[in-house]
Amino acid sequence: MKIDVIPYASAIRPDLIKNRNVVVIDVLRASSVMVTALANGANAFIPVSTVEEARQKAVKLHDEDILLCGERDTKTIDGFHLGNSPQTYTRSKVEGKTLIFTTSNGTQALNQLQEAAEVFIGSFLNMKTLVHRFLEMDDVVLVCSGTNNNFSMDDAMCAALFINEIMNMKAVLLSDLSITLLKAFQKDNGNLSLLLKDCYHSNLLKQNGFGDDVDYCLQKNILNIVPEMKNGRIIKG
Amino acid sequence: MKIDVIPYASAIRPDLIKNRNVVVIDVLRASSVMVTALANGANAFIPVSTVEEARQKAVKLHDEDILLCGERDTKTIDGFHLGNSPQTYTRSKVEGKTLIFTTSNGTQALNQLQEAAEVFIGSFLNMKTLVHRFLEMDDVVLVCSGTNNNFSMDDAMCAALFINEIMNMKAVLLSDLSITLLKAFQKDNGNLSLLLKDCYHSNLLKQNGFGDDVDYCLQKNILNIVPEMKNGRIIKG
Repeated sequence: MKIDVIPYASAIRPDLIKNRNVVVIDVLRASSVMVTALANGANAFIPVSTVEEARQKAVKLHDEDILLCGERDTKTIDGFHLGNSPQTYTRSKVEGKTLIFTTSNGTQALNQLQEAAEVFIGSFLNMKTLVHRFLEMDDVVLVCSGTNNNFSMDDAMCAALFINEIMNMKAVLLSDLSITLLKAFQKDNGNLSLLLKDCYHSNLLKQNGFGDDVDYCLQKNILNIVPEMKNGRIIKG
Repeated sequence: MKIDVIPYASAIRPDLIKNRNVVVIDVLRASSVMVTALANGANAFIPVSTVEEARQKAVKLHDEDILLCGERDTKTIDGFHLGNSPQTYTRSKVEGKTLIFTTSNGTQALNQLQEAAEVFIGSFLNMKTLVHRFLEMDDVVLVCSGTNNNFSMDDAMCAALFINEIMNMKAVLLSDLSITLLKAFQKDNGNLSLLLKDCYHSNLLKQNGFGDDVDYCLQKNILNIVPEMKNGRIIKG
């Protein structure tokens, strides 16, 4: 299995993802939100790039049961129903709803993947199920969303965990970045507390009062769904 | 000291390098060529992006003692005096000469750094001297040139060696990518043979008959100069 990694959203180029199976990883917090909400019965996410686009889409889809969701500068957007804290996406709030979703990093990545073969959502929460989903496939591009157009260790170590797990099950052909992330992950024996001790994004969230979100998002294998993108919507696969 | 890393040449953005001290790293082989040739008495390198630009520059600088140097697809360019094998840049060939230089990756990086404060050339060959040069500075951006617009482990592990060495001498503030490269480097205790065993670029060069170049370029601290860019030329600092 051929494994490539794209280090952050703005490094996505059509030639890197065309006709390939892509996993989008935005651990803190868009991927974790989508996995959690879909596991709690949400109907679909519609990722959009801007706040204005989200509001327009809500008007257009007035016959669906809509929630406006997302963040800017880590915080809930004025007038939106939900922010970017996964644990607020409870069953009572999201079941049967269509969630229009805009975030600083994760949804930017999703909107650049039109030429991919298949697009899946990866996080620590659903890693085991995600890896099993790929056992029969022969290639993957792991797209780390990053933070503010830069490389972010939380996403990179999630990509590394995918590589570490799937290598135990099948033969792999790793790109240079894949090898590098895997070595970094193995240096601390996959201990996320150690690996992410000085990670900019997780520390920023803690400073902004979202420490509980960070703790939640770094849990491995607690949800067993793999979200997929179909016709511009993220649904439970 | 603040340490950032840019993962490959096409990821250079003006906001990442403006007014900052930059080290350009293209281990295989542009950095190693420049360090070697300047140590052997070359007058200067003039980096250019295209083969055509190199020929035009040679005509324009007809009153200097010029050599046309560089590679495409790892091989010497038709009609050029020298390719990209550092050991061919002997004192007898390069002393006192001005070298017009175009390569697939390294010189592309150099021509995107107009807004940097200072630009230096880094390689394994001159690492110790380079690190000492930075002891009094308070920031650096390590630009890994990469290979064909992608991340390349040879450059990344050279950046990691810089970080590993300077951390022993002064306090540092590391970006997420800096931390990741350092952890990968330390996983194999800085053993380059182990780290680069599956590196795409070094294996490509070996397949193309340049195994001796790879062995040469991975030697640490055998030359004690730090090339710098001044007015579009790379000179011995």
